[in-house]
Amino acid sequence: MDARELNDYLHRQIPLSRAMQVVVEQAALDRVVLRAPLEPNLNHRHTAFGGSIAALATLAAWALLHLRLKSQGLAPRLVIQRNAMSYERPIDAAFIATAEFADDLAWQRFLAVLHRKRRARISVIAQVRCDGELAARFEGDFVALDEGSEVSTTK
Amino acid sequence: MDARELNDYLHRQIPLSRAMQVVVEQAALDRVVLRAPLEPNLNHRHTAFGGSIAALATLAAWALLHLRLKSQGLAPRLVIQRNAMSYERPIDAAFIATAEFADDLAWQRFLAVLHRKRRARISVIAQVRCDGELAARFEGDFVALDEGSEVSTTK
Repeated sequence: MDARELNDYLHRQIPLSRAMQVVVEQAALDRVVLRAPLEPNLNHRHTAFGGSIAALATLAAWALLHLRLKSQGLAPRLVIQRNAMSYERPIDAAFIATAEFADDLAWQRFLAVLHRKRRARISVIAQVRCDGELAARFEGDFVALDEGSEVSTTK
Repeated sequence: MDARELNDYLHRQIPLSRAMQVVVEQAALDRVVLRAPLEPNLNHRHTAFGGSIAALATLAAWALLHLRLKSQGLAPRLVIQRNAMSYERPIDAAFIATAEFADDLAWQRFLAVLHRKRRARISVIAQVRCDGELAARFEGDFVALDEGSEVSTTK
């Protein structure tokens, strides 16, 4: 799934991404970069609404996990369990969320636990930038539930 | 500012609230209740997108602070500094965010600090429910910056 395919998928499946005019700039296995223009994401102070910033970071983090799992032939149910956001400065132009894994060892552990227990948790971080400056940080825990293989083994 | 006025204000000033089809159900000084239908807030699993849930809770918390400050004749700049979300269960129908202050003493302290230092921080909590069941929790810290009185005293 390349950037164009991920873009179409998000806009089709998650209407809010369309309303936010999200554009996928990069869809790689180690990094997903999403961009949003300011206009549809404004607040009453003419800067970006916190809810839009959190939504862009959440989408980027979810998409990174989705792509990485897909590359391994896996499509578990992915659920966000918790997240923390910190807002470092107001955003007054288009903004970009870059999601990455905290470390590659965590990914290997996650896959091993998912395989063994059909349920595993992993953290993903995302940084939101505007004009090259860090504007917000996201850190989220996602749970993968491998319902597919459960069905296949009980058949 | 009653529920209808807050509704108009949000839809006019924060376009994402319009895209999410947010409806103000209650706009009181001790509680703000916002509702969103599922359709514009769906994810690829036909449940509510985490970003929409976080955005609704953020709006409710911000609106509660805005109303309470306005009732005291205050209109400082309000900035969200950080927030934490936990997602307890999937949301498969319209959902409601209810924002409240953690305690009334905190409000009195906040006002006193804002008056003295023109800058004060306060926490607001919001619970998101679907069909009466708790589905997500939000806790956010907001900073109020009283720029208006700074301008008036330097004149």
